[in-house]
Amino acid sequence: MKVALLSGGVGGARFARGVTAAVDPADVTVIGNVGDDLEVLGMAVSPDLDSILYALAGLNDDERGWGRADESWRALETVSALGGEDWFRLGDRDLGLHLVRTQALRAGEPLSSVTRRLARAVGIEARLLPATDDRQRTWIDTPAGSFPFQEWFVARGHRDDVDGVRFEGECTPAPGVLEALGEADVIVIAPSNPYVSIWPILAVPRIRGSLRDREVPCIAVSPLVGGHAVKGPADRMLARMAGGTSPAHVASCYAGLIDALVVDEADPRDPLAIRAVVTQTLMTDLAASRRLAETVLAAA
Amino acid sequence: MKVALLSGGVGGARFARGVTAAVDPADVTVIGNVGDDLEVLGMAVSPDLDSILYALAGLNDDERGWGRADESWRALETVSALGGEDWFRLGDRDLGLHLVRTQALRAGEPLSSVTRRLARAVGIEARLLPATDDRQRTWIDTPAGSFPFQEWFVARGHRDDVDGVRFEGECTPAPGVLEALGEADVIVIAPSNPYVSIWPILAVPRIRGSLRDREVPCIAVSPLVGGHAVKGPADRMLARMAGGTSPAHVASCYAGLIDALVVDEADPRDPLAIRAVVTQTLMTDLAASRRLAETVLAAA
Repeated sequence: MKVALLSGGVGGARFARGVTAAVDPADVTVIGNVGDDLEVLGMAVSPDLDSILYALAGLNDDERGWGRADESWRALETVSALGGEDWFRLGDRDLGLHLVRTQALRAGEPLSSVTRRLARAVGIEARLLPATDDRQRTWIDTPAGSFPFQEWFVARGHRDDVDGVRFEGECTPAPGVLEALGEADVIVIAPSNPYVSIWPILAVPRIRGSLRDREVPCIAVSPLVGGHAVKGPADRMLARMAGGTSPAHVASCYAGLIDALVVDEADPRDPLAIRAVVTQTLMTDLAASRRLAETVLAAA
Repeated sequence: MKVALLSGGVGGARFARGVTAAVDPADVTVIGNVGDDLEVLGMAVSPDLDSILYALAGLNDDERGWGRADESWRALETVSALGGEDWFRLGDRDLGLHLVRTQALRAGEPLSSVTRRLARAVGIEARLLPATDDRQRTWIDTPAGSFPFQEWFVARGHRDDVDGVRFEGECTPAPGVLEALGEADVIVIAPSNPYVSIWPILAVPRIRGSLRDREVPCIAVSPLVGGHAVKGPADRMLARMAGGTSPAHVASCYAGLIDALVVDEADPRDPLAIRAVVTQTLMTDLAASRRLAETVLAAA
């Protein structure tokens, strides 16, 4: 069964790992969000792609929830001591990846190509693609002003309420994205923040068009458990921008693009315009991620 | 006593540390070689300036002879694992400095200004200046072809004989350099490799002119002990390019620019056209570096 998975960072990465445990990884294409990519210390950082890459390679830090396991912070400590830009936490091992990627991008290699090389180098069998090779940047509109995603999320600790989300950049899908969506037996939207993890992917017009015109089922997994985000501001954003945190509110983020929504047992069972699949969605470990993935794929 | 010191990397850095122990560091200006600067992994690396900076701040690794003490290599290990450029050894702490400097240079800050900030941040009282803010690059001509300095020195392990040394770039002195040379009570050339550490500094026309037209003594310290380089290829280069490794051959590298040469007790005492000062030049520890510096300054 060929799977095309749209994914954001941590939750999506964990789910992606479950999908590659549930089916042959060679049949899985993960299309990652790049709207929250940033330049920090001159490095091109792709937090969501990296979370997925680390998770698929088993290199991620499960406890911290982001970044690499067995990480150290000596370069960044030095940056701090020298008065440099230290608001974004880059570990030493993580930096190694950013150095390699940044150099390749500067030399003109597209992000999708670098990502393929990196994924191969860490032994990933699934295909990992950025949504686009173009520069896309997510902006967050808040009562305190508009901020680049990471400034709002990391530097301001996503404390500001969100009135709107915008995506800067005219983007075409990265090579392989439309093919993966076209060849898939099922398209899955990972349990990521709809607004800042999935919408940037859907903001690439031809990706949105491909989902709208799909001939195979598209299933989204809600990132909420009992109306609450496992981590991050998805619940607050849904409450403010969609008017609530029920499955219907989550589904409204993907109107016209999905055929089913996988929701947690703890969420209300109001009738939806699309099919609802109720299961345990909390991914406490790889077995739970795999079970969730299996449920999603079985629903297809 | 105001001292202006022309210095290359490791040996020069060790001597610079001795000079700042021998006189008030506030009276010392170290003018560092930047001909062997390079871009590695997209980072702007200034190996000689950094060796001096680390030595003056007491952060250098005395045993290894270069780089920082208590260093780790996790970023570079990752770079290697990902198939990146790993021929030049960048430690994690060292990387922190390169990240800060590279970002500042990209933002348009001159090297001398970044260097001043970095030196201040690590608590250095002496003044550390690059010879020039312009891009200068040392090229090494060998029977196997011409190589950028670091490619010859590090990647090829300086195994090729050297037929000539060239300096690419039209360079003016960095702000403060001519002033420091003009105000100094003595100009000192550190026990560095004449060809690849000091000549690049002297290749900046107005610096050479300032030494040629000096009104204060200029004293060079030979980098050889008993005709041998303590480390590196200085002896082989002198043998091939100057015709020998005696004090006279060392002095010939600075013809017209120095008034005295400090040589080791183990070297031959042939008469020189300039004054010879014989002492122990091996800098086994800070006390030895300080003694050597005191001897040099006393000779002035």
